This record gives sequence, structure tokens and C-alpha cells, in this order.
Amino acid sequence: PDWKRIEEDGEERLQRQYSFHDFNDALAFTNQVGAMAEEEGHHPALLTEYGKVTVTWWTHKINGLHRNDFICAAKTDQLYLRAG
Amino acid sequence: PDWKRIEEDGEERLQRQYSFHDFNDALAFTNQVGAMAEEEGHHPALLTEYGKVTVTWWTHKINGLHRNDFICAAKTDQLYLRAG
Repeated sequence: PDWKRIEEDGEERLQRQYSFHDFNDALAFTNQVGAMAEEEGHHPALLTEYGKVTVTWWTHKINGLHRNDFICAAKTDQLYLRAG
Repeated sequence: PDWKRIEEDGEERLQRQYSFHDFNDALAFTNQVGAMAEEEGHHPALLTEYGKVTVTWWTHKINGLHRNDFICAAKTDQLYLRAG
């Protein structure tokens, strides 16, 4: 369960699913990633469910993946390691 | 853009997309719906993106829609009206 390259709406995107104990832990991670996104000025799609969060990074302006998406993916992993 | 019945993973679900000014406003709504979900002991899927949140309610135990999903959908609408 690492980052996958997926295609959605004709755009290549980076996506990873993270596991958590329950809904609240998942939502707490969503907020951590959201705060990081605000700092970066770059915003992912965050799907929060019971016990999991699916994070998707891509750059709409170029309809695909920019170097910054990979950097933000790595930063998301770091947040997860600290949360775990 | 009201609630739609969709089918996902062979289960009928209720889904609605709400619009917001930016990412932070969207994330604030995600947290409001998350807090309501914890109170209800019933948890939706919450997709947070820049300027929008997509909320999906269903009851996994019955692989579809229960009366409670419609109640939670109505409560989600109430939170949106108060947020707007």
C-alpha cells in the first residue's frame, strides 16, 4: 500500500490509502494533511472514511503530475509516520 | 445539486456535493460533519477538495440504505445551511 499512479478525469494522479484505528483518527490525519496543504499552497483530494484516509495529489494546471506532487506525497508519508 | 442515489461497490448510497469558497472552508465543513457522525455513531465517506466536499452515506451492514442514512443526510444539509 504505497503510492500508486492512477488516472482520473484523464489526468495522472498520485494516490495512497492510509489506515487508522477509527473515524476520529482518520479525520485527525485529514486535518494534518490539510494544514500541510495550506502551508504548501497546494491542495490534494482527501477521502476520509472509517479507519482510512485516501490522499490524492496532482496538479490541475498541467493536467497531471508536477515535481511538487511528489514532494507533497513524501511530506504526507512523514505526517503518517509521526501520527503512527 | 441535491442528494443523488448512486451505486458503488454494488451498494446503493446517498451522495451530495457541497460548494465552498476555498480548501479551508471545505475542511471546516468536513470536521462539522465528522463531529455529527461521531455523535450519531454512523460514519460517512467525506471527500474534501479545494472548494468542495462530497458526502456519501450508506449502511455497510445492510449493503445499502437505511432510514438512518436519510436522517444523517438531512442533518448534513442543516449543517451546511448553518455554515453558509
